[in-house]
Amino acid sequence: MPLVRISLLEGRTKSAIEKISNIVHQAMVETISVPPLDRFQVVTEYPKGYLVYDPDYLNIRRSDEVVFIQITLNQGRSLELKKALYARIAEQLHQEVGVRKEDVLINLVEVPKENWSFGNGVAQYAT
Amino acid sequence: MPLVRISLLEGRTKSAIEKISNIVHQAMVETISVPPLDRFQVVTEYPKGYLVYDPDYLNIRRSDEVVFIQITLNQGRSLELKKALYARIAEQLHQEVGVRKEDVLINLVEVPKENWSFGNGVAQYAT
Amino acid sequence: MPLVRISLLEGRTKSAIEKISNIVHQAMVETISVPPLDRFQVVTEYPKGYLVYDPDYLNIRRSDEVVFIQITLNQGRSLELKKALYARIAEQLHQEVGVRKEDVLINLVEVPKENWSFGNGVAQYAT
Repeated sequence: MPLVRISLLEGRTKSAIEKISNIVHQAMVETISVPPLDRFQVVTEYPKGYLVYDPDYLNIRRSDEVVFIQITLNQGRSLELKKALYARIAEQLHQEVGVRKEDVLINLVEVPKENWSFGNGVAQYAT
Repeated sequence: MPLVRISLLEGRTKSAIEKISNIVHQAMVETISVPPLDRFQVVTEYPKGYLVYDPDYLNIRRSDEVVFIQITLNQGRSLELKKALYARIAEQLHQEVGVRKEDVLINLVEVPKENWSFGNGVAQYAT
Repeated sequence: MPLVRISLLEGRTKSAIEKISNIVHQAMVETISVPPLDRFQVVTEYPKGYLVYDPDYLNIRRSDEVVFIQITLNQGRSLELKKALYARIAEQLHQEVGVRKEDVLINLVEVPKENWSFGNGVAQYAT
């Protein structure tokens, strides 16, 4: 159910991008109970000047390695779960691909379950 | 009022993409009363590895022909209308461009009417 | 906190795109109290046919200079503030880069404060 948009600056290897994509998904599986097969993502690389970030907002030092992660998902996760998700994504991106934790920006957009169709023109999550 | 983001893998003809764009709009007009002229869309083609989908989630067999359709629109459509929209998009994409119905993923993001300006810096839908 | 997606057709200079990005941010700072350093944007250029707009909807004459601006931000701004934001963006884009006011389309997607992490895996806005 999540639809994940990952935005980053050009320059990473295809392998690094694949790892980032894997890690973001895995963190959702482990912290907010996203089904392992429920994986739908798009990754966009931007030329310099087309992805704009503040290098200092909230006294967090960001660099050109910044990764924007916007996740559209079902509403209803608790604040604790959201915090666990943010922490896990940043931690794993840091440990497994060397992304600085300062460079991980995450935003959630929540929608009701009936707002998804996963194929066949059916609202699979609506009861 | 809908702003539609269509994401797909590279490899389709420009004509096929144009048809997909037309069909998604037409389905919204016919099922959820979107005005025929109210059409605003962006279509992005992704290289392999940059659009990630599970080939099996919910036992729906997806292929590289997968189309992600994310629609930001006014809140308030009933579940019945949403179901009609999903069914129509999948059906028409299948009949008119040969997209497998399994390959049609749809997500709705609902916003209040006052969250739109269609030009001139005015909130045309706010009363 | 806002994450801004700016979508436009190919053909503008890099300098014009930079100005558009600056103006949209500055308008948010001046009208809806976005902190000056709170700037996170992506700008995407689309080839003709991949950004679709109606040239006439609501009797507003749009051209290929059209700019779609989708802003994900914290919920709770009043209608008056939203109107001020729309007006300022359109006015400043017109005055400073010569964009026709008819060509400025804006959409807001509102989320709760806890739906952001600005780095370090922390939900900085959640209390």
